[in-house]
Amino acid sequence: MTKPSRPGRFISFEGIDGSGKSTQARLLAEALREGGSPVTLTREPGGSAGAEEIRRLLVEGAPDRWSPETEILLFTAARRDHVEKLIRPALEAGETVICDRFVDSTRVYQGTARADLRDMVDALHASMIGLEPDLTLVIDMNPEQALARGLARDSGEDRFEDMGAGFQHRLRRGFLDLAAANPDRCAVIDGMADPQTVAGRVRETLEARTGP
Amino acid sequence: MTKPSRPGRFISFEGIDGSGKSTQARLLAEALREGGSPVTLTREPGGSAGAEEIRRLLVEGAPDRWSPETEILLFTAARRDHVEKLIRPALEAGETVICDRFVDSTRVYQGTARADLRDMVDALHASMIGLEPDLTLVIDMNPEQALARGLARDSGEDRFEDMGAGFQHRLRRGFLDLAAANPDRCAVIDGMADPQTVAGRVRETLEARTGP
Repeated sequence: MTKPSRPGRFISFEGIDGSGKSTQARLLAEALREGGSPVTLTREPGGSAGAEEIRRLLVEGAPDRWSPETEILLFTAARRDHVEKLIRPALEAGETVICDRFVDSTRVYQGTARADLRDMVDALHASMIGLEPDLTLVIDMNPEQALARGLARDSGEDRFEDMGAGFQHRLRRGFLDLAAANPDRCAVIDGMADPQTVAGRVRETLEARTGP
Repeated sequence: MTKPSRPGRFISFEGIDGSGKSTQARLLAEALREGGSPVTLTREPGGSAGAEEIRRLLVEGAPDRWSPETEILLFTAARRDHVEKLIRPALEAGETVICDRFVDSTRVYQGTARADLRDMVDALHASMIGLEPDLTLVIDMNPEQALARGLARDSGEDRFEDMGAGFQHRLRRGFLDLAAANPDRCAVIDGMADPQTVAGRVRETLEARTGP
């Protein structure tokens, strides 16, 4: 983990739909708060009032509602608002920020569809956002189990989940490749166990990377 | 006017709020249709179903609802959708597309606020949109008269109009400077007359630039 230039630390959770990363983000936030640390728990897309409005445009409606390029612009707009209004102020106040999905999700989802879109995501992130997590925890899981868990939810926000099991396999590979390419920032956590067991693995990894 | 590489021609109208450019866009569309030309009349922000949804995020609410950077990303997302779904298909079908505001509005509004934002608009437009009008008609008007006309409307979309007369003077200067810097593409039309007189000036300019 590279030394952050800000008082707080920024931790993101990544993984395919249904991998349990949202549960793990919440359990880590609870554990750190019980330990006395101030924590901001947030998620993407969304996380700030403006970004949540943009989120609704992104997650509702038909899968082909937006072209990939328009989608990348909307994700970047939502992320810019989220970072400005919530993440940076919390980091500057010394809090730990835990975010359920961040730019790696956009990189992997778009890059899985088309390699040139990954370059577009990276270019827009570099010019318009410029913030990377200090630590990214990839919760890894068998796509069939993850998909079954994802479909069991009924959030109405199913644009990405509609895309099927083959797509989920490619996404899993995308997250594992991204973690392998960024070993200082990323750690892969085996998500195939009960949530408390996985939460223990998350805390052990965090302590090994950053100290208790 | 540079020779377009597409069958149709793309004409934008620009100017400060209340300058009468929307009326002029409509009058030109009517005149060309009466002459037998197929015309698509549209506007920004908005113009396609998705872009109209993004428009609502941009034009409603408090003036400081979005940072300039987030605003530029949202404008670019809306424009990408509008160009993909409406403008390019109409041009490729050989229609004349008349658009009430296009990228020059974003250039001038953002550039009037901060010079570095103008560079950001240009960079995002070049990488994500890449389409310029064949002819841009700047309807020029005294800001006090234009502002009074703009405030007389009651659209609820008053984020920009709320910013006051001094800002409108700087915008007018921005549009005139942009036209002077792009003489092949842009023409300035004196908007200080009754709408039919101004419409006559618009048609004369169009014929002088492109032929009848």
